[in-house]
Amino acid sequence: MKPNPSRVNLCECWARDGLQGEAAFIPTQAKIDMIDRMTRAGFRRIEVTSFAHPKLIPQFGDGIEVLKGIERNPEATYIAIVPNDKGLDRLLDCCQAGYGVDEIMAILAASEDYLLAGLNRTMDEARAPLGDIVRRAHQAGLKVTGVIGTAFGCALAGEVPVERVEELAEWYLEQGADRIMLGDTTGEANPARVRRVYRRLRTRFPEVDFVAHFHDTRGLGLANTLAALEEGVVFHDGSLGGIGGQPATRRPKYHEGYSGNVCTEDLVFMLEEMGIRTGLDTESVIELGLEAERVLGRELLGHVTRSGPARRRSDRVLAASLLRPGLKIRPGLFLISPASSRSFDSEAALAEHMIRAALSKSWPLPEGLAVVISGLAGPESIPEREVVLTRFTVLSVDARQARADLECLSQTSDGGVFFQGRIGLLFPGPGGPAREENS
Amino acid sequence: MKPNPSRVNLCECWARDGLQGEAAFIPTQAKIDMIDRMTRAGFRRIEVTSFAHPKLIPQFGDGIEVLKGIERNPEATYIAIVPNDKGLDRLLDCCQAGYGVDEIMAILAASEDYLLAGLNRTMDEARAPLGDIVRRAHQAGLKVTGVIGTAFGCALAGEVPVERVEELAEWYLEQGADRIMLGDTTGEANPARVRRVYRRLRTRFPEVDFVAHFHDTRGLGLANTLAALEEGVVFHDGSLGGIGGQPATRRPKYHEGYSGNVCTEDLVFMLEEMGIRTGLDTESVIELGLEAERVLGRELLGHVTRSGPARRRSDRVLAASLLRPGLKIRPGLFLISPASSRSFDSEAALAEHMIRAALSKSWPLPEGLAVVISGLAGPESIPEREVVLTRFTVLSVDARQARADLECLSQTSDGGVFFQGRIGLLFPGPGGPAREENS
Repeated sequence: MKPNPSRVNLCECWARDGLQGEAAFIPTQAKIDMIDRMTRAGFRRIEVTSFAHPKLIPQFGDGIEVLKGIERNPEATYIAIVPNDKGLDRLLDCCQAGYGVDEIMAILAASEDYLLAGLNRTMDEARAPLGDIVRRAHQAGLKVTGVIGTAFGCALAGEVPVERVEELAEWYLEQGADRIMLGDTTGEANPARVRRVYRRLRTRFPEVDFVAHFHDTRGLGLANTLAALEEGVVFHDGSLGGIGGQPATRRPKYHEGYSGNVCTEDLVFMLEEMGIRTGLDTESVIELGLEAERVLGRELLGHVTRSGPARRRSDRVLAASLLRPGLKIRPGLFLISPASSRSFDSEAALAEHMIRAALSKSWPLPEGLAVVISGLAGPESIPEREVVLTRFTVLSVDARQARADLECLSQTSDGGVFFQGRIGLLFPGPGGPAREENS
Repeated sequence: MKPNPSRVNLCECWARDGLQGEAAFIPTQAKIDMIDRMTRAGFRRIEVTSFAHPKLIPQFGDGIEVLKGIERNPEATYIAIVPNDKGLDRLLDCCQAGYGVDEIMAILAASEDYLLAGLNRTMDEARAPLGDIVRRAHQAGLKVTGVIGTAFGCALAGEVPVERVEELAEWYLEQGADRIMLGDTTGEANPARVRRVYRRLRTRFPEVDFVAHFHDTRGLGLANTLAALEEGVVFHDGSLGGIGGQPATRRPKYHEGYSGNVCTEDLVFMLEEMGIRTGLDTESVIELGLEAERVLGRELLGHVTRSGPARRRSDRVLAASLLRPGLKIRPGLFLISPASSRSFDSEAALAEHMIRAALSKSWPLPEGLAVVISGLAGPESIPEREVVLTRFTVLSVDARQARADLECLSQTSDGGVFFQGRIGLLFPGPGGPAREENS
């Protein structure tokens, strides 16, 4: 088996494929803020808007305002969908005015039923103008990704022959497309088919970059991504919160239930856990996912967003810079017996020992760390062996990062409170040298 | 790359691992009914209950009643967890009385923190009695699966060395265990680690059957299952609706967010779509998942449960036996132009043509099928090319299966109603020979 790519290039699709399914208009400034956060979090491919006709998809009626408003990182590629000539005209005007995009997506589908339902075009009607779009965009210096939707099957037509996908890829490349995206538009793919299709297309077009774009319609989004990854695909798509799917137009719905993209938070988590570099970190992407939920006003589909990253003891020594108000520190377990408890001079000494034991499950503790205990309500005696689980919530971190205050709760295995109160962590040295020692 | 197993053996864990996380007691008869439905759906491995102390996990206080009540298929393996001596005594009494199980699961965890938090035992305290349990169960003619929980990481302790997992597997096998389950108890696994761990253990113990048990805590359940499958593992676990996780006891919670098992509905869908035989079919398992939702009174996590199976044209010719009241037939698309519409003698003839076109996207239609149209409200004329999406809901199927009545809705691409009304499908021949022709 070939080794997996050691690094992948993720595209964050929330602002386009994600929002296209939202019936409520998201304010332009909220879109701009989210895209800016994506840029700052480290995404280097970002779908920003669509040049679909605003009457068809009102969500993108503000596309030009979004392009004007967003921060640009020169290392990032900003991408828009251009479904027709007029859309390209509008986009090229933006480019000339200095607020265009770096790349466009040209849209076709391997299933003609889908083309008709989604774009009201037959294959022939769709192809001819699209070839012009690809060529014109290319002449204007834009990269072009040729999207082949329903590449693994179609909610309307059912199975889609791989030969048709191959033929469309060839056609796109002849028109000058730089990359080919295989879209699992309505979530019909499975890992075996993903492997077969990508293996065939990558064998046929070994020099071409393919973009894997899966929807999590039936829960297989990450498994399909894994299959594409293991076939050597390095460009992968996701949307914060796993939103997206059929655009919110007046057109009849062509599928039920889930329809969104692979959830970016879970995707980044999977890849980073596998040791595949995304240029992103799970914690920041979870923060972004939570922000996406605030913008949309509802809980979205990210799993890691709710469950948090996998538990792992940090390599970094605990420092105030690693803490922020509201942070929940995962529970750490400690075993205490009547005998071992007697070795402590006081209840406070026992409490401190337990607190250190619990914290040290998450980080190595710096030498010289002082623990100030206040208001601890503990048991009077320890009649038998106790399993104690201690968890913390950070209340505040002082500006000089010399001290953090935490709420602490220790519980025994029957759920009883063993210790509860506030603690202060006093970090050694002025300004938190513990942090600098361990960078 | 090795070929995947062509057939897998799935264990349905809903009644044990699934329900252990439910705080509300599920009535005994509901448990029995669900297990019977699993048996009839074709599951050949079913976790039925736990012999944990009823005071610790009240959900399983009725374990013996469940064992007494369920139907038995001699080809199926019924499984219970036995966490201690007294539990085994109670189970062996059941076995002697004729309503035992075929297999027990003995529980250990690679993380001592987890053992302490979950079982209030150190590794040494857990191992000694467990060895007795394995040996006694074996002598009594029961199969034994040795469970190694937290095999890929632990919500309390973080990383778990593979060497410890290997050592515990060896220990279990020395005690006489028949199979080894690696449990991703708190959902810390990722596909790369799954591959490494299984590759190592399967190399070390090539004759041993391993059981892959993942939790979907961070959305990676199916991707991890895929990785295990591709490492040759044929025993896989899931729970209907993706429920499960930490038992509902008074013990403090050791993780947040999602905690359930891989969702059986999505798991079966993935495997069957990949051409890997499970002995189950997606439709029946979706029905089971919906029943599990009715029992628990809430919507669960299955994706395919909401979105339905992938769209595919059936090989079977349409017959009344394939329809049932309430069935929603997926939309089929049809293109009509002013010119083509003029070739129909009447509105009804046009409607019938569209209905046949839409139905034939799902099944080949039998020769001699008659379509009776009543109450269709259609447009007066067709001014331009129209993309029409037609969907159906089955209202009734007559007892002789000669006729089915359906609600029909055809919509144009702007969401307008093109045709709406009731149709009758009259199947050729008495008693529906179309079905028999195509068995």
